[in-house]
Formats: sequence, C-alpha cells, structure tokens
Amino acid sequence: MPELRKDPITGRWVIIASERAKRPKDFITERGEKKGGTCPFCPGNEAMTPPEITAWREDAGEANSVGWKLRVIPNRYPALRIEGDPERRGEGMFDRMNGIGAHEVIIETPEHDKSLADLDEEGVALVVRAYKDRSLDLRKDARIRYVLIFRNHGESAGAWLEHPHSQLIATPVVPKRVQEEQRGVKAYHEMRERCVFCDMVKEELSVGKRVVYENDGFAVVTPFASRFPFETWLVPKAHLTDFGGFGDAEIRGCANALKEVLRRTKAVLDDVPYNFIIHTSPLRDRDNWEPGLHWHIEIMPRLTKVAGFEWGSGFYINPTPPEEAAEFLRNA
Amino acid sequence: MPELRKDPITGRWVIIASERAKRPKDFITERGEKKGGTCPFCPGNEAMTPPEITAWREDAGEANSVGWKLRVIPNRYPALRIEGDPERRGEGMFDRMNGIGAHEVIIETPEHDKSLADLDEEGVALVVRAYKDRSLDLRKDARIRYVLIFRNHGESAGAWLEHPHSQLIATPVVPKRVQEEQRGVKAYHEMRERCVFCDMVKEELSVGKRVVYENDGFAVVTPFASRFPFETWLVPKAHLTDFGGFGDAEIRGCANALKEVLRRTKAVLDDVPYNFIIHTSPLRDRDNWEPGLHWHIEIMPRLTKVAGFEWGSGFYINPTPPEEAAEFLRNA
Repeated sequence: MPELRKDPITGRWVIIASERAKRPKDFITERGEKKGGTCPFCPGNEAMTPPEITAWREDAGEANSVGWKLRVIPNRYPALRIEGDPERRGEGMFDRMNGIGAHEVIIETPEHDKSLADLDEEGVALVVRAYKDRSLDLRKDARIRYVLIFRNHGESAGAWLEHPHSQLIATPVVPKRVQEEQRGVKAYHEMRERCVFCDMVKEELSVGKRVVYENDGFAVVTPFASRFPFETWLVPKAHLTDFGGFGDAEIRGCANALKEVLRRTKAVLDDVPYNFIIHTSPLRDRDNWEPGLHWHIEIMPRLTKVAGFEWGSGFYINPTPPEEAAEFLRNA
Repeated sequence: MPELRKDPITGRWVIIASERAKRPKDFITERGEKKGGTCPFCPGNEAMTPPEITAWREDAGEANSVGWKLRVIPNRYPALRIEGDPERRGEGMFDRMNGIGAHEVIIETPEHDKSLADLDEEGVALVVRAYKDRSLDLRKDARIRYVLIFRNHGESAGAWLEHPHSQLIATPVVPKRVQEEQRGVKAYHEMRERCVFCDMVKEELSVGKRVVYENDGFAVVTPFASRFPFETWLVPKAHLTDFGGFGDAEIRGCANALKEVLRRTKAVLDDVPYNFIIHTSPLRDRDNWEPGLHWHIEIMPRLTKVAGFEWGSGFYINPTPPEEAAEFLRNA
C-alpha cells in the first residue's frame, strides 16, 4: 500500500510509493533505457491494459474491444489505490496515512501519432468531457478530497508512453499549491470583495498585451509573473469554481481555447514538451467560503533546465517576458 | 534591467530576465546544442570571466591571474544586477520592482575534472568558507533581503559548465519557500515552544533508520516526507539560525558532513545530477521572532522526470522510501 507522509515543517504531503520501491540500480537502468515495442494504448492491444473504467464508442461495442474513440483505464502502476481507509496516524512527531485514492489514464484518441493539439475540436471536447465525467464520478467517494487532472507531453515532461494520454490522480488530501491559491483568493477577497482571477482576466483583456486568445467564455493569457517561458493560463471569464459543474457550452468553449493554445504552443516552439494541470476547487469545502477558487488550466512548456533550484527555493527565473511570449503565440 | 514580478494570487516573486530575452528560436537551438571549447573557469583563462570579486591564493598573487585555489566572480549573465534601486511600484493590479541584487559564481577548484565530492575535506571547507564570507559581505547592502546559495551538478540539473562551481543569488525579496519554512517553524514553536528542526534531528538520531551520517555538529538524514528519491538534508544539531554566523569548528563539521553525503550519493547513484540549496534566515528579520529558522542544506538528486506535475501541484510522488535510501547511503 502506498503511503502519504506530511512534512512537519511546511505541511506538504508526499506519496511514498513503497510498493514499486526503486533501488539505485533501477534508476541507472532507466537513464539508458529506450522505448519501443508494442503500444498498450493502441486499438487492438486493449488486453495489455487493466480493464477499462469507461470508454466512448461509436456503436455499442464490447468493453475492452476495439472501436473506441476515448478510453479511461486504471494506471497499471498506481500512485494511490482505491481500496482501504485513510487511517491517519502519527509516528513519533510525524504524520502519515494510507495512500488511498485513484490513479487513472485517459487515452485521448486511438491514433498513436496524433497529439492533443492535432485533434479536431470535437476530439478535444470529448477529452474535456471525459475529465468532467471522471471528476463527477470520483467525488461520490467520501474519502476523496481532490481530483488532480494533468497531462505530460514529451519524454522530458515525464510522459513514459508516446500515445496521447492524460492522467487523473484523486487524493485524500488537498495539494499544497491548491491550498496556497485558496489562501491567496481569500486574502484578495477580504480586501476587495472580488475574485482575484476575475479581476485578472478583466485587466488582461483590457490591457491586451498578455492575451494569447479568447472566445466567448474563455481567455488564454501569459500570466504577469510567468514562472516559465511561454507559460499560459486558460481561464474561464465567468467565476466558475467547479471543474465538474459546467455544461455543454463551457465544454465546447474550453475545448476550443485548449486546442488553440496547444496548437499555437506547438507551432511556435517546435512541438516542445509541456505539462498542463487543471486547478479547481477541493471537493469537500466548495461551498464553505467566498468567493471559492476560480478554476483554470496552467500550461507549462519545458524549455529551461534550471529547475532544481526553483523547486527548492520557490524562486523562478524566466528569460522570456510574458508580453513577448504572448505576441509570438497570438500571431501563430 | 531585469525585473521582479509578484504573482497576485500566491505572492510568489519571479525574475523576468528581460535583457537576455529568449525568443522561440533560442530554445530550439539550445536543445540540440553540444558543449565544447575552452573552459572559462580553468586556470589560465581568467580573462574569459568578469574580474574576480575575491579569490583564495597560496601566495599573494595578482588578482585575475593563475595560482588560485578558489575564485568568486560575477555571473556573466546575471539574473539580478547590483546597480540601482528596487523602486517597488504597481502596474494596474500587479506589483513589480527592479531586479537589483547580485549573482555570483564560486569556482570551487582549479581542477576541471574534480567534483565537489572528490575534493579533500580542506577543499570542501574552503568552499563553505567562501559561501560564508560572501554571505557576510553581501548583507552589508541594505537592499538585500536574502542570500540564496545553491549548486547544480550535471547538465540535467541545470549546470551549463562542467567545471565545479556553485552559485549565489542575493535577492531584494525573501523566496517563497523560505517564508513557508518560517511560517512552519513559527506555528510549531507556538504549539510546543521548541524548534521543529531541533526536534526532528533529535528524533531522527534516536530512531536511526533515516540517518545517513553524523559527526559532532551535524546530522545528514533522508527526510520523513522526502519529495525525491535519495533526497538528503544536512542539518546542524545545534539551533543555528544564521549561515553566516558560525565559526571554524562549524565550517569544518559542515564540510566533513557535506563531503560525506556527496561522496555517498555519487557512489550509490553513479554520479547522478543533483541540486543542493542552503536554506537560512532572511537577513533583515533574523532577530525579530522566536525561534528563528534553523539553517540546513537540502540535497536533491535528479532521478525522476515526473516534475512538471509536481511544480504545478506541490504534490510529490517518490518511488523510494527514505528508510531504504538511507540504508544504501549509510552503507556506501
């Protein structure tokens, strides 16, 4: 059983995946490893993955057979497991709990060589719909506090398999970064009685120089204090707090903006590796405070290598002003 | 002039290095670039670097000539610059200030092919002494709030040059991670009237299973909630809050422990790339609160690639339990 441990100084939770414990030799082998062989995410190889959780099929085909447009499966090497109780407990001065939760893979398309940026808008909308549906399903489980959806594109961004996919980790604790955003949103609201994200979107759209793209419901901007070159945020214009709580119009608007920003990033930066992460409200405190977290997607191209220092200090050096990045992306 | 910008949601400061602004093509070239040519840090090539700030020489040789054991120079491409005023100011809802500060390089040895782990204890002690001396010198500047000392080893850890060196960035703001530690230390002290780092060192030494090494003054442990496989912390046993405020015995003890942990990490993990960062008290609030930050060094080997997700969420997955990592490092 994986374990969650809490740092006694900063309160940060860490997953210690003790079941797949890696020893020094495992890392050394990995460094030289090359990929190859059969892709377990391609149609026809459904038996190579754990049985699917859900799938979208044109016709009413059998589960775990070909004919799907999108497929959701459990991660074969889950960081957290669905069985068991959290059992929060102490060990001396330290805090730990069982690593319960869920770890799923969203296989976005049957086509191995397409990336999310290459899918048509309908295809991207299906991916956004799958994110939403899985979020709604997992929140029925009272042990789950947060559903973290993210996408790694490219090997140096942490993608182990080429076939287009996203991941979902449902956790029994709220990630630290989300807590920080909640604190920031609360503090701003106490001072101004407005949402800082709503203010930011309005200001960016009126100033214009950091806007990459907008449609009726969504804006894509390079944030004023971008940590990374060509970092972008996709933010709903309305104050939406719950990634699971929107309808078809928002799905279409989000898919349109997501496709546009990924397409432009790919065009300007030569298919650069990237990570994106959906930031949304924790599941159990959504209605407990004003104004609630404004959900958004943060997209981080992996262009710079000077990362260890940033991890440790929380201090980022970005060699590309966001105004210049926005101009490149806007014109792409 | 580089610029510091503050994220309005989390309060995180970011350096936007607009002078060396990178455009998309610069990154694409970099990805394929190979290093080579003359090493500017090797003896005989002193004229290839900016004039030295200080150096240790056996005899009283000329500045910027050969014969040095250790050399401190300004970074040729500084993230922050020493000239000017911070000039904190607003721009709409955003906060910015001039990027004043300092960015120095500590060339640790004239020998190109040695790493810090290979130096003898006297050589490592000289490096620690240089860190301390530069910290003490820079704090005379009232604009400086924090002196951040770090080391990148290996290309994938962000080291652009092979020749052994560390870096120092003096900043007009306190890095977010340090503020978080201060908050954690304060909260623990309010509850228990003890320092959380002092408690942690005592508990680790009494439990033993996460101890890598100890000498009279210092302990090296794999932290209970390690973010990274084989992450280690080097912590003074006494409650020392100021990295600049210790004497010769501490320099020797710190150098001994630092050499030991780097040597063991290198032996167990095949010269793995790593980052280390010294965490110490901010310069201007050192005496204002109890008990003050307990300085320490965090050493993070770069073994896992799944990092973008961790950046964005503050949620870490570590496949190696720290107890197993400690055992490998203890027996190396």
